[in-house]
Amino acid sequence: MLNFDFYNPTRILFGQGQIAALSRLVPAEARVLLVYGGGSIKRNGVYDQVRAALKNHTVLEFSGIEPNPTYENLLRAVEQAKAGQIDFLLAVGGGSVIDGAKFIAAAALHDGEPWDILAIGGKIVDAALPFGCVLTLPATGSEMNSGSVVTRKSTLEKRSFNSRKVFPKFSILDPDTTVTLPLRQVGNGVVDAYAHVMEQYMTYPVNAAVQDRFAEGLLLTLIEEGPKALSMPDDYDVRANVMWSATLALNGLIGAGVPQDWATHAVGHELTALYDLDHAQTLAIVLPSMLRVRKQSKRAKLLQYAARVWNLTGGDEDSRIEAAIVRTEQFFEQMGVKTRLADYGLHRGSIDAVVAALEAHGRTSLGEQREVNAGVSRKVLEMSL
Amino acid sequence: MLNFDFYNPTRILFGQGQIAALSRLVPAEARVLLVYGGGSIKRNGVYDQVRAALKNHTVLEFSGIEPNPTYENLLRAVEQAKAGQIDFLLAVGGGSVIDGAKFIAAAALHDGEPWDILAIGGKIVDAALPFGCVLTLPATGSEMNSGSVVTRKSTLEKRSFNSRKVFPKFSILDPDTTVTLPLRQVGNGVVDAYAHVMEQYMTYPVNAAVQDRFAEGLLLTLIEEGPKALSMPDDYDVRANVMWSATLALNGLIGAGVPQDWATHAVGHELTALYDLDHAQTLAIVLPSMLRVRKQSKRAKLLQYAARVWNLTGGDEDSRIEAAIVRTEQFFEQMGVKTRLADYGLHRGSIDAVVAALEAHGRTSLGEQREVNAGVSRKVLEMSL
Repeated sequence: MLNFDFYNPTRILFGQGQIAALSRLVPAEARVLLVYGGGSIKRNGVYDQVRAALKNHTVLEFSGIEPNPTYENLLRAVEQAKAGQIDFLLAVGGGSVIDGAKFIAAAALHDGEPWDILAIGGKIVDAALPFGCVLTLPATGSEMNSGSVVTRKSTLEKRSFNSRKVFPKFSILDPDTTVTLPLRQVGNGVVDAYAHVMEQYMTYPVNAAVQDRFAEGLLLTLIEEGPKALSMPDDYDVRANVMWSATLALNGLIGAGVPQDWATHAVGHELTALYDLDHAQTLAIVLPSMLRVRKQSKRAKLLQYAARVWNLTGGDEDSRIEAAIVRTEQFFEQMGVKTRLADYGLHRGSIDAVVAALEAHGRTSLGEQREVNAGVSRKVLEMSL
Repeated sequence: MLNFDFYNPTRILFGQGQIAALSRLVPAEARVLLVYGGGSIKRNGVYDQVRAALKNHTVLEFSGIEPNPTYENLLRAVEQAKAGQIDFLLAVGGGSVIDGAKFIAAAALHDGEPWDILAIGGKIVDAALPFGCVLTLPATGSEMNSGSVVTRKSTLEKRSFNSRKVFPKFSILDPDTTVTLPLRQVGNGVVDAYAHVMEQYMTYPVNAAVQDRFAEGLLLTLIEEGPKALSMPDDYDVRANVMWSATLALNGLIGAGVPQDWATHAVGHELTALYDLDHAQTLAIVLPSMLRVRKQSKRAKLLQYAARVWNLTGGDEDSRIEAAIVRTEQFFEQMGVKTRLADYGLHRGSIDAVVAALEAHGRTSLGEQREVNAGVSRKVLEMSL
């Protein structure tokens, strides 16, 4: 096991009816900025629940945080937070809204150029506004971690920062809020969570027995519960299991003490920035090919994955590995997320653009062994045509 | 899944060499009370590492915290903390030292009768001294939770309290500190952690898929790594896996959103208070019989346990359940912890005393369904003769 430093102070209130707890969770004297997206929370009743819980609080609003939140838009929220003398943020929505709130929280108290938070990174974040979350879309894990991804529209750059100053103070996870989600978002969320686990699990063995078991437990749960979330959308326990799995997939726990990959995410980010694909779609396209191209360096863990997650123990090693990757692809497709570039109308020409973007952004030594250079990324994308 | 409220702000620094980080983790201006046990940390070099890291800090000491720390002894530490104007505690040792530090931390800032913290419970704890831990004995999980168990010697009462005010600020887990442990303590620690998982897992199903997978992952890890910790005491990764498993067995995560039992612990506490058995010895005696006696109400989870942890899927249900319980007993014995009262020189007469103590302490409606009354506890103990 590798040395690690684990810290996660986010309080989770999980279950039906928990949104009402906002009345006591949000400091009574705070000037609150309620941050949300495109209005789905108004249609599904979550907005009303939140406003009812905060009826005795001072609440301002910033709406219109978009999927893959943009730097340009978030800067407007930062201005509003400053002008409104906001001292508490409440993010209500999915990972994009929460990622946006983290950037707003840090930028509102940052004296210099706000882009530096993304360009230089979270180490320059000395303070942030406190904030809480009401999660309505299980997928990114942002509700219980300290990372944020923001896209600069003017340059098509998707950047992230990480700082212990931007852990949510609390996150409310009520599975009932997810029942009205479009199935495309449910499928995307499950694939996103699955890929998060794989980025931390599918590397090389370091004898981290618990981390492996926990990662496998999350994968098995997503495989068992994910399809039920599509076929039985009203089943509370299924939604609850998917929601808690997605949070635990990226709260730092399964990644503590193990090598991590994240090459799939890096390549996927460029696909989203250039072609506006959903984040999960890019992961479903890239991950299977990434595993095939890097089969040798990931061999031991691929065999473990085949055995423990897909119960594939017969036949020679290479056929077990290939079967596990095929099962992975089939699972993504079962969740309604296509796994080929062509499925999204992208062809060979797009590969040049993605590789050029990776090079422009210095993403040419990716992966747990830093071996994913531009050539490897090209090979992965060609295999995903 | 049941609703839950999960919060765990303890920072974990895990791995070789982490003790040196104390120099920056402990506030520079603090007056520190170093709390430890019987001196093993002086023999194994941990004390020297700690003092070296704190060479620029103001450090007082309180040594002599005993296994199953006593209220009477801890009160002396509280007096010293007050008299010495201590504002930070550092617990160096195993669960007993850390449990003791939690009580000292709370009692030092408590205005009323200190026994109330244990008699009434953690809800009366309004504040506590901040403290950190250096763990040297993986077992209780106290290094990453907010619970503490203290024994009042004068009345043979073993009581606990729980308060979010007594989470450690940080805990340092260096597996190297465990290499010199007597094998009896290694075995006890593994059995203790295993029983902690079982108290949270072996109840009735509530469709908490992730919690079940994580609990099973911990059990499998303890089964695989525990015996290696005895046979290969110098293997760093084995020690690391045991250490991290024991912490995660009782940090609140696997117990969030599920029913919990704890009847085995309640009965075991009386055995320790009356006959001075090691905590883990009492668990190894009580748990298997507890499962046999309550086989009907735990049936579904016992079958799941048999299948997923012990790979027992053939034969009729009752034989699978019995085989899983036998495997559990054999595992405890393999860890060097005997599973019968007679193994510790206790016979039928001791059962009356334990049952009388349970009744005297109001522990007569134990377990996840409150069905473990004095009669059930007697039956369990008789089956463990």
